[in-house]
Amino acid sequence: MARPLCIDSGRLYASLSALGAIGSYADARTGLTGVNRLALTAADGAGRRHVVERMQALGLEITVDRIGNVFARRRGKRPELPPVMMGSHIDSVETAGRFDGCLGVLGGLEVVHTLNDQGIETLRPVVVAFFTDEEGSRFGTDMLGSAVATGRLPLESAYALRDRNGLRLEDELSAIGFRGDAPERVEPPFAYLECHIEQGPVLASHGIDIGVVTGVQAISWHELTLVGKSAHAGTTPMELRADPALAAARIAVRIREMATSGRFGPGMRATMGVVTPRPGLVNVVPAEVTASVDLRNPDDDGMRRAEAELLEFYREVERSEGVKIEWRQTARTETVAFSSRVQDRVEAHAQARGLSTERIVSGAGHDAQELARITTAGMVFVPGEFDGISHNPRELSSESQCANGVNVLLDVLLSFANEETRA
Amino acid sequence: MARPLCIDSGRLYASLSALGAIGSYADARTGLTGVNRLALTAADGAGRRHVVERMQALGLEITVDRIGNVFARRRGKRPELPPVMMGSHIDSVETAGRFDGCLGVLGGLEVVHTLNDQGIETLRPVVVAFFTDEEGSRFGTDMLGSAVATGRLPLESAYALRDRNGLRLEDELSAIGFRGDAPERVEPPFAYLECHIEQGPVLASHGIDIGVVTGVQAISWHELTLVGKSAHAGTTPMELRADPALAAARIAVRIREMATSGRFGPGMRATMGVVTPRPGLVNVVPAEVTASVDLRNPDDDGMRRAEAELLEFYREVERSEGVKIEWRQTARTETVAFSSRVQDRVEAHAQARGLSTERIVSGAGHDAQELARITTAGMVFVPGEFDGISHNPRELSSESQCANGVNVLLDVLLSFANEETRA
Repeated sequence: MARPLCIDSGRLYASLSALGAIGSYADARTGLTGVNRLALTAADGAGRRHVVERMQALGLEITVDRIGNVFARRRGKRPELPPVMMGSHIDSVETAGRFDGCLGVLGGLEVVHTLNDQGIETLRPVVVAFFTDEEGSRFGTDMLGSAVATGRLPLESAYALRDRNGLRLEDELSAIGFRGDAPERVEPPFAYLECHIEQGPVLASHGIDIGVVTGVQAISWHELTLVGKSAHAGTTPMELRADPALAAARIAVRIREMATSGRFGPGMRATMGVVTPRPGLVNVVPAEVTASVDLRNPDDDGMRRAEAELLEFYREVERSEGVKIEWRQTARTETVAFSSRVQDRVEAHAQARGLSTERIVSGAGHDAQELARITTAGMVFVPGEFDGISHNPRELSSESQCANGVNVLLDVLLSFANEETRA
Repeated sequence: MARPLCIDSGRLYASLSALGAIGSYADARTGLTGVNRLALTAADGAGRRHVVERMQALGLEITVDRIGNVFARRRGKRPELPPVMMGSHIDSVETAGRFDGCLGVLGGLEVVHTLNDQGIETLRPVVVAFFTDEEGSRFGTDMLGSAVATGRLPLESAYALRDRNGLRLEDELSAIGFRGDAPERVEPPFAYLECHIEQGPVLASHGIDIGVVTGVQAISWHELTLVGKSAHAGTTPMELRADPALAAARIAVRIREMATSGRFGPGMRATMGVVTPRPGLVNVVPAEVTASVDLRNPDDDGMRRAEAELLEFYREVERSEGVKIEWRQTARTETVAFSSRVQDRVEAHAQARGLSTERIVSGAGHDAQELARITTAGMVFVPGEFDGISHNPRELSSESQCANGVNVLLDVLLSFANEETRA
């Protein structure tokens, strides 16, 4: 058996370090070097120019669209056929590592570099893309560039967004020189492939090399305001209380029970990350509590049934605890399913390389979920150290973990790029 | 049947208003007038001088001891006999009403005023006392003056306390002119009687006029630090979490179950008033939570069994949730039982006046619990409006509610003050 075509893992890892040096900062708490390339800041502009220079050095043809998405095209034998696209984002949260998003973009360029080195010509063109403001940390809307490119978000709505200083997205895009001329709606590629760090603990805890991403789970967030009756903890008998902190505690315990029961499917997750009693004193039953509920589910029906049961439970707690519970939906998305053709190929090629695989639902949102609306799309996950911590300077996937993901990306890219008609 | 001797309810209520005007402030949130006479501030000094002037106007002989407790003595037919003492405190928390403590002191003076008006001479002397810094809000030690007077707290320890600005208690006592010369250890009176607002909802909710106070419940406070593992709420499966907020919620639910189960006696109370997750974000499983547990029990054995079960539950939660729970005892007192002789007389005299009574455990601490160590001591509670809210400008007992309590105080005072030998 011939040694399979492989990317250069050292070159890939060096390219992640080089991009990670742009917008880097010394994290005061950890002593580690973090990355801050918030979308459309000067640091993002510098990062973009760095990547565009690498694209040009690889002989790719650059297009910048009106929302600042950048596409770098490598010709194929049949240049008129829709290309296969690899991509992700290079913007970051304020306290980031150097892998989130960048692995998909620099991994795509490493695939192209490998094809160039080996003189491999594909049937279809190959495009490497990075999309504007995937994180949403600055202007409040995540997957912004890919949502505009695929038609979910109108260009003018995106342009009109402002950051907390009142700066308008369109102006900021112009200021860094990335308000391009190309139409913002992308021509659907033949397929879209994205390699990304897992940003969670599953693959590492199972000792798995490659995550075959089946889709993105549904999200439902509730912001709760629980109003009871402030009372002296020493003088107020239990039966005369209306304790909103106890009501919040009962909801926290209930959503965990719901998530682990299996009643709403095996992959449900539930978290109460915020709970703020007022006044918050040891000897005072609180008057009011603010709390959050974060539900995730890879199954839309399971999510809907969980939401319905939870609302019924809010009413039950209101009745039994004598408190008032107001809830506000602060986020709600349905599941996204990735193409089974991509999943199958990721799995087969990984296994052919001797890499272990696991089908996994993405816990976070990605550009691939936007592209999935217009084409055959899928993702390759690689494991991360420290329980897959992300959005943090400790974020770390090793050179071999990253190389495994990009080698599989290479294989799947080649399989689609040499496919004349849809299988 | 002769009309019983009665105090002047209008005069009593006016005296509460007059003292309440000293250190008063306009409460921004409620628009009500609150009282701020933190111990040994200028406002406390002004309140003290106001009360001392009233004592002098009633012909009483004033003594100020070395910790600033003030005793006003009315002669009896047998001046050499130990007196009967009525008292409480006039210092306040920062956001107080005008009844807490003041009712016991001004009620005592109203009793004396009534005896003066009627020309009644008692066998034993009568003393009206107010004790320094019952609240403990400024120097951190409650029942300070009565604890010094009864020997629980050494004078030098009390003098050495400092407020949050570093000011020393002894200096502050001197500054307001109430560092007296009399020995700080009080000669045990024949009996000690204290009339006080309930500071809770029980009497009002039961429609009762007079609370016959059986004692003060035991208190146990835990400060909890729960350490888990911060994780992304979207990407981290339930079985890979170590969620300290969920652990805190389970403890909150458990202590309520313990309090209402009856397993630790009928009067147990339990509260988690503080719960602070960090970082406290909707989509992050917290790394760490600070929480408080406040347990009360009128039965010492019930309290000890509840504490033991709770510590065992902490260990169980540590094991099942994978978190570390550290706890620190921040307060712990045993129960105090008041004299059954005082209880019986309070009950009998109240009922003779046609007032309804209920035996009740004090949920809060009072000077009477210190005096109970050295003499026959007891308390009379009167109901309060708005669920007995206290330490708040809304604190309110009506003129007739206050008068009922002080009339019973008068009756019980006379019964002890005319008793030659211990019954």
